Amino acid sequence: MKTSRNELANLKNDFVTALRIIQREGLSDAFAHLSARVDGGEKMLFMPRKSPALVKARELFVVDFEKVVPQSSVHQAVYKIRDDVASVIHFHSPAVILLSVVGETIRPMHNYSAIFYEGVPVFEGTGQVESPERAGEIAQILGPAKAIILRGHGAVVVGHSIREACILALYLEESARLQVEAMKLGTPKFVARQEAERIAKRTFKPTSTERAWDHFKAITRG
Amino acid sequence: MKTSRNELANLKNDFVTALRIIQREGLSDAFAHLSARVDGGEKMLFMPRKSPALVKARELFVVDFEKVVPQSSVHQAVYKIRDDVASVIHFHSPAVILLSVVGETIRPMHNYSAIFYEGVPVFEGTGQVESPERAGEIAQILGPAKAIILRGHGAVVVGHSIREACILALYLEESARLQVEAMKLGTPKFVARQEAERIAKRTFKPTSTERAWDHFKAITRG
Amino acid sequence: MKTSRNELANLKNDFVTALRIIQREGLSDAFAHLSARVDGGEKMLFMPRKSPALVKARELFVVDFEKVVPQSSVHQAVYKIRDDVASVIHFHSPAVILLSVVGETIRPMHNYSAIFYEGVPVFEGTGQVESPERAGEIAQILGPAKAIILRGHGAVVVGHSIREACILALYLEESARLQVEAMKLGTPKFVARQEAERIAKRTFKPTSTERAWDHFKAITRG
Amino acid sequence: MKTSRNELANLKNDFVTALRIIQREGLSDAFAHLSARVDGGEKMLFMPRKSPALVKARELFVVDFEKVVPQSSVHQAVYKIRDDVASVIHFHSPAVILLSVVGETIRPMHNYSAIFYEGVPVFEGTGQVESPERAGEIAQILGPAKAIILRGHGAVVVGHSIREACILALYLEESARLQVEAMKLGTPKFVARQEAERIAKRTFKPTSTERAWDHFKAITRG
Repeated sequence: MKTSRNELANLKNDFVTALRIIQREGLSDAFAHLSARVDGGEKMLFMPRKSPALVKARELFVVDFEKVVPQSSVHQAVYKIRDDVASVIHFHSPAVILLSVVGETIRPMHNYSAIFYEGVPVFEGTGQVESPERAGEIAQILGPAKAIILRGHGAVVVGHSIREACILALYLEESARLQVEAMKLGTPKFVARQEAERIAKRTFKPTSTERAWDHFKAITRG
Repeated sequence: MKTSRNELANLKNDFVTALRIIQREGLSDAFAHLSARVDGGEKMLFMPRKSPALVKARELFVVDFEKVVPQSSVHQAVYKIRDDVASVIHFHSPAVILLSVVGETIRPMHNYSAIFYEGVPVFEGTGQVESPERAGEIAQILGPAKAIILRGHGAVVVGHSIREACILALYLEESARLQVEAMKLGTPKFVARQEAERIAKRTFKPTSTERAWDHFKAITRG
Repeated sequence: MKTSRNELANLKNDFVTALRIIQREGLSDAFAHLSARVDGGEKMLFMPRKSPALVKARELFVVDFEKVVPQSSVHQAVYKIRDDVASVIHFHSPAVILLSVVGETIRPMHNYSAIFYEGVPVFEGTGQVESPERAGEIAQILGPAKAIILRGHGAVVVGHSIREACILALYLEESARLQVEAMKLGTPKFVARQEAERIAKRTFKPTSTERAWDHFKAITRG
Repeated sequence: MKTSRNELANLKNDFVTALRIIQREGLSDAFAHLSARVDGGEKMLFMPRKSPALVKARELFVVDFEKVVPQSSVHQAVYKIRDDVASVIHFHSPAVILLSVVGETIRPMHNYSAIFYEGVPVFEGTGQVESPERAGEIAQILGPAKAIILRGHGAVVVGHSIREACILALYLEESARLQVEAMKLGTPKFVARQEAERIAKRTFKPTSTERAWDHFKAITRG
């Protein structure tokens, strides 16, 4: 089931918009990367090895899941074991790095962090993702979660669409930031998993993701 | 006593300006909402279900206090029991969330927080305001105060006008932010309630609200 | 010795530039105020009761030291007892407020805070400066220092010119901010008073104030 | 081996771009300074005594290593003992100052700080670099490292090119900032030196420096 020309053009628009949003919101340095599944599952739309602030729609390309191109491994490894995932984003935002270097991860504390009620596992290996094998390990540890934190490095977030992956990335970093700040003040009151799941199911819906996407897209364009 | 066409146009201008101000000042994500009482008391001017950064004056509409539209419950519940309130704003700013998750609330410590000398109650329920019943509970706990904090969620602030509600929202978040920072350093010297009330009565006047409104309106337009 | 028409025009330019700089650098809310001594000593150039972000050169006016106009008291009180002072600025910046509410003040720790080697006294009264009497008290406590902090309120900084008062205001807030951050990490290594004075005499010179003024003026204009 | 006219023009472009980048990224106040080695080793391209935000390409000049001009000493001292260094930058960024006043320095904790695996020595003298003798001391303490922190003052960073020195300066400050934040939360998990070196050798390459340079150059131009 090949992605139509029209769908691909829309995907490319969302792809570049998502990169601009994470840049504006402080999630990206020169090294974030994003992908989106195309053609019914065995391929992904990917970006060249350059800053997400500079990537243009016409530079995006399609690559299958067996071909290793720079930075592609973690994306391919996740798609292979997560049929439900349509987009993967990797970035180096400061607050998730902070949680990881003090042995913590996101815990439900407010309406955004509740969205990650399944838990956010931490991959303890340091340095870059250097091989398909290591990427496979990360994908395994991600399991059914929405995000995984790589210690001292950054995070990988997945979504049912580019828009969802982008908005979840923003929520993950904001959740980490608020948790870091709360930990400086004492022990925050966390929300139990069941209660977090209940909150998430009321607040994290396609319509609210669209509302957030429209918001960040508009303020990014300025 | 119907709000005149002219008054309504002015209200709509202030409404959209207030939304832009809270956006610029970091109080709003995609989900803040504002209202203003019209027609002598049984109705309110309200906004559609979209980001406050995107709402336009022509999209505002009047709704009565019995009709539930998305996000309207907490506004209606407050107007019903607070005759003195002409505007209600709800937002998810970070510092008030932080205070609430460590079991604190705003306490008078400096010239802005002194304005909240009546105290700022905290609603301990988590998640969104989901029903008119829950909205009613929140209005009851607000009582005669200028603001209420919703744990892990955000705040509701009320005013005698859109301008006052907007400026009080800014003062609430700035007060929370300074208190959070002071708590990181030790135990701040708080100001006694009576002294806070004395300060508030000298500093929080309609003329100073107008001065602050003119300031934030100008820097928001850039 | 009347200030010449030309000198007055230059003063007004610097006055408005200083207001824009403190606005851009986050020292000002809607309520900061600035003055400059004119006419050889018994009068000052002052601003109307509006946000420093909005004041225009043509709105500035000259007032003598006996006439009380809104917000003028603290300026007049300082000029009366400090012959060396040519400009006074009052503002509500966050970090100096923080130091004051935890019982601290600026102490020499790095090259900027060393400039305040004479010490920065703290006025413990709360609320606004409400009368010429209170303003006189503050001026007395200021003594020969470059700045005084008003607990839970803000600071008053003095200089040999508008430019110097403006740059010192920036250095005071940056010093407070770094000290607050250092205090969160432990007990900072402070610099002894004599060493601080030595540093100040090498780093805080008219040429370096001009360099800083040119810098902030340029980045404020954008 | 004289630097060609063309090479010099390119160097001047990079020089001014680097100054604009450190300004935008918050590393510079009015007093940062940069240099680049020219003419095969005994001279450097240098800037006049003004804010890095204001320096223009046509104002840059070449000076040999024996002539002392304002601010030149530390640059000359480093070039004399470090043949491998082609560019030196000195700046007063806040987070490196913070680490230094609490007796700390950069330690490998994440992918950026790992780049400084050789260690970042701290010069404990306070105040400005006042003489060629003191500059020589600083160069000695720098040794083979990529950076040295001057207590309560700032840092000196060296590189194989202007671009590398600029990007390393950004990584140093970001490393300091993250370490400061992590220290507020507890004891961060640091990475052992050998592991840090392994990470650095995979992540810190000329191609990644070019990618980061392109990124910061683009977002600085806006």
